[in-house]
Amino acid sequence: MEYSQANPAEVRRLIREGRLTGQTSGMCDGYAQANLVILPRDVAYDFLLFCQRNPKPCPLLEVSDAGSRRLHIIADGADVATDLPKYRVYENGELTGEHTDISGLWREDFVSFLIGCSFSFEGDLLAADVPVRHIEEGRNVPMYDTNIPCLSAGVFHGNTVVSMRPIPHALVPKATLITGAMPRVHGAPVHVGAPEAIGIRDLAHPDYGDAVTIREGETPVFWACGVTPQNVVMRSRPAFVITHAPGHMFISDVKNVNLKY
Amino acid sequence: MEYSQANPAEVRRLIREGRLTGQTSGMCDGYAQANLVILPRDVAYDFLLFCQRNPKPCPLLEVSDAGSRRLHIIADGADVATDLPKYRVYENGELTGEHTDISGLWREDFVSFLIGCSFSFEGDLLAADVPVRHIEEGRNVPMYDTNIPCLSAGVFHGNTVVSMRPIPHALVPKATLITGAMPRVHGAPVHVGAPEAIGIRDLAHPDYGDAVTIREGETPVFWACGVTPQNVVMRSRPAFVITHAPGHMFISDVKNVNLKY
Repeated sequence: MEYSQANPAEVRRLIREGRLTGQTSGMCDGYAQANLVILPRDVAYDFLLFCQRNPKPCPLLEVSDAGSRRLHIIADGADVATDLPKYRVYENGELTGEHTDISGLWREDFVSFLIGCSFSFEGDLLAADVPVRHIEEGRNVPMYDTNIPCLSAGVFHGNTVVSMRPIPHALVPKATLITGAMPRVHGAPVHVGAPEAIGIRDLAHPDYGDAVTIREGETPVFWACGVTPQNVVMRSRPAFVITHAPGHMFISDVKNVNLKY
Repeated sequence: MEYSQANPAEVRRLIREGRLTGQTSGMCDGYAQANLVILPRDVAYDFLLFCQRNPKPCPLLEVSDAGSRRLHIIADGADVATDLPKYRVYENGELTGEHTDISGLWREDFVSFLIGCSFSFEGDLLAADVPVRHIEEGRNVPMYDTNIPCLSAGVFHGNTVVSMRPIPHALVPKATLITGAMPRVHGAPVHVGAPEAIGIRDLAHPDYGDAVTIREGETPVFWACGVTPQNVVMRSRPAFVITHAPGHMFISDVKNVNLKY
């Protein structure tokens, strides 16, 4: 795949210059990608507290200083206003625009939250011969609303969204241990089998992403999902929020392997 | 030891009623104890961000809602204003009083931070036959200022304080793996051997706590320490802060073993 062996700083430069505007899936193999949520300072405390209380669905990789477009921890010097290929702007909960650069919208009270994503552990699953069905089938991972409540914080509250991967029964322990070693990117599963017990009625109709085949001898395994914080933010209908456009993530300089330590 | 087999809720009740006012070391064997820092809301965001950026020295077990004396996560219904045996009040960086109950000082803008402590992993070290010298010698753990910078956040900045335990060379890997399994209470060591490399001049003169014997065949191993956030807070000379008095910790309902998962 194009750019799969590229250096993250080089790909971010191409994105910043407007020469790459597509999805980031498969780019910079081995490096962590992150979801982005930008909120005004007046609700940033509540959101930071929400993430602290719900680390499995909301694993923070970096939180910027208020007003600063620069990152320092996961990609020193990167500019969150230019270094993602596509952004979405929401006002009072409604999508009001898509942009490839948000420099012109920047405000001195913006705080950027970079949130880890399960891409980071899927490489380890595949390397250890644990099947990842949505990759095999060329689809998006299936995601479902559940009845598992998050701990509330200020204006933010809601239930956990999960991603699902069908795993052969005998490999469930291995999949648990591999992902449990990466608590900074959702970690171990939150539920194994019995979708109805967490409020999922029909695995064939995910709430987000695509359905995948569950074969005989496999059980559905559920991981906390980064759609959770996005849902929770939207549900509060904030006056102004910017996120990455789906699939158009931030590519960090952090190797996935270093998320284990 | 008295109260070593007691239930945390029962001990908190005795503390709340003023019938226990001493140190909590050794009480409620198997349950996590926590450091307390109470700050006004106007600096709570900076402190929460500081802890998010420095999880090894500042592992947050719970952050209260602003103005609420109640905890919900690590001890449902516990009252942070009455359930610790002794508190210290600092104004503009100066100690201005010790109290066994801070109900009368409570303000609607207070936020309580409960921070994990290395007591939680020392039981696992002992259980696995890794010596813990300061316990053997009946002393406080030796702690040292270092030159390892924390990531700053707003008004809060400073270097990491470490605790030191002398470990036989052959047991360093075991001690690393045992403590690495508990990232919510400081986790794996930050440094092994070579104290001078992190700015420690003389192990015989710790900056806090007591010196301990280092025997032939042992190497000093250093863990990030909960004194770090206390130092960082004091260094900023906040107008008002309340902490637990040294050794007079909050006893939670969380079993140490559950801090691994």
